[in-house]
Amino acid sequence: MVVGIIGLGLIGGSMAIDLKRRGFAERVIGVENDPVASEAALRMGLADEIVSFEECVRGSDIVVVAVPVGAAVKMLPRVLDIFMEDGFGGKIVIDTCSTKSQITRSVHYHPLRGRFVATHPMAGTEYSGPWAAMPNLFDGRACIFANSEDSDPQALKIVEDLYGVLNMRPIYMNADNHDVHTAYVSHISHVTSFALALTVLDKEQDEKHIFDLASGGFSSTVRLAKSSSDMWVPILTQNRENVLKVIDTYLEKMKEFRDAIDSYDDERIEGLIHEANKIKKILR
Amino acid sequence: MVVGIIGLGLIGGSMAIDLKRRGFAERVIGVENDPVASEAALRMGLADEIVSFEECVRGSDIVVVAVPVGAAVKMLPRVLDIFMEDGFGGKIVIDTCSTKSQITRSVHYHPLRGRFVATHPMAGTEYSGPWAAMPNLFDGRACIFANSEDSDPQALKIVEDLYGVLNMRPIYMNADNHDVHTAYVSHISHVTSFALALTVLDKEQDEKHIFDLASGGFSSTVRLAKSSSDMWVPILTQNRENVLKVIDTYLEKMKEFRDAIDSYDDERIEGLIHEANKIKKILR
Repeated sequence: MVVGIIGLGLIGGSMAIDLKRRGFAERVIGVENDPVASEAALRMGLADEIVSFEECVRGSDIVVVAVPVGAAVKMLPRVLDIFMEDGFGGKIVIDTCSTKSQITRSVHYHPLRGRFVATHPMAGTEYSGPWAAMPNLFDGRACIFANSEDSDPQALKIVEDLYGVLNMRPIYMNADNHDVHTAYVSHISHVTSFALALTVLDKEQDEKHIFDLASGGFSSTVRLAKSSSDMWVPILTQNRENVLKVIDTYLEKMKEFRDAIDSYDDERIEGLIHEANKIKKILR
Repeated sequence: MVVGIIGLGLIGGSMAIDLKRRGFAERVIGVENDPVASEAALRMGLADEIVSFEECVRGSDIVVVAVPVGAAVKMLPRVLDIFMEDGFGGKIVIDTCSTKSQITRSVHYHPLRGRFVATHPMAGTEYSGPWAAMPNLFDGRACIFANSEDSDPQALKIVEDLYGVLNMRPIYMNADNHDVHTAYVSHISHVTSFALALTVLDKEQDEKHIFDLASGGFSSTVRLAKSSSDMWVPILTQNRENVLKVIDTYLEKMKEFRDAIDSYDDERIEGLIHEANKIKKILR
């Protein structure tokens, strides 16, 4: 099978590595508009060839759209249009984006909607670009299939096989529910990390050596603040309603903490910490 | 040298392991009031013997107070009082607490103030108790010596040797500055993690499977929410002024983000993320 990957960054590049070496893809062709990233992806062997967008769509059995969700929403209808122009040839397109409502809506009425499978492999790091790609990134993690009832069963089956090769656990979910859930377990974490980084960087302008003291706890809490704006601006704007709702709940919780500390209320601080500790039972 | 460790939890227990096996302590005696923790510490070999508080202070060359800072503030003057009662015998007491202003103030006018060295080894995990103790916990991390000019140079030298054996980098700092800095690079991270856990746990009451989707990013951001209230209530109350100030800056940054998302202002979101990304240059 020829797999065409549009966007050879962390996600696309890591997919390329494992789909090739695990035998799912006989050949990987890639699209990468950034010239440095393109050259790096070739040298790293992420793709057998870098081609144009049209060549990729025409030359692949499965097209993987692995670009930031703002670009993906515009690109996806064009991919299906090219499938149409060429006559239906059993081709499939998937996306890997972190928000699912707008992207599924963008092709909801397309005559070839069935050839699109909306997926969100829940794996990643705070790094981006082809140099962030790595083997085994997806192993054991969850992959969400959004609105899979709108995909042709045959196309869905092949994409399930693809993620099976990546050792991902499939979870089936409505696109709107997906966006609510990821606002809670992924998007808010990024916003809190960005805000934490901004808070400490502000202070650092006066006090030069503040980071000498940064502990492992600080590093892990602020890690996501390294994430790229290319990826996160469209996620936060596309999932605006849900993200705002979660931020508001979060601000209330922060204020509860603030009030308890402000009023020397040890019992209330203790109660809030005990409540928060319940996260232990849930996370490994 | 006999090292007496009061509180054989994560910090005290981990010190016991490395001070013993690296030859600094010929003998470790411990105080542990919780009967299960006490028995576990013995079985794990963290201490050669579990003794009473008074026996520990009387029988050790160096006493390490490794209990939550609320208890430490009350305990420390009593340790120096016992040194007095026994006649000055060159003994030393150190603490390992995460706030330093109140603890240094608690013995500032004590006649044996010089025998106390205030330290904060900046290492730890989100776990607590003797079962959380581990070898090599301190290697390569920073250890803060607070108000070290108030300690006898001979006592300071021995404690520097102790932390040298633990492979820690010494940093010398005024106790009040310490508490400002740690509010930024440690205490606020805990508050934001607790608030994040509370936010998501709230939602989880309606939506059972929300944590199936939790990514590695979420886990690392929320990790500190597993931290114990025994340790964190006294830190947050003792460092109340600084922590409140940092929380207020943090709330402002969160609101800036919220406003930018709310007003569809992609450029402002991008600007905030670029600013936050500067944390890359600072953290390894």
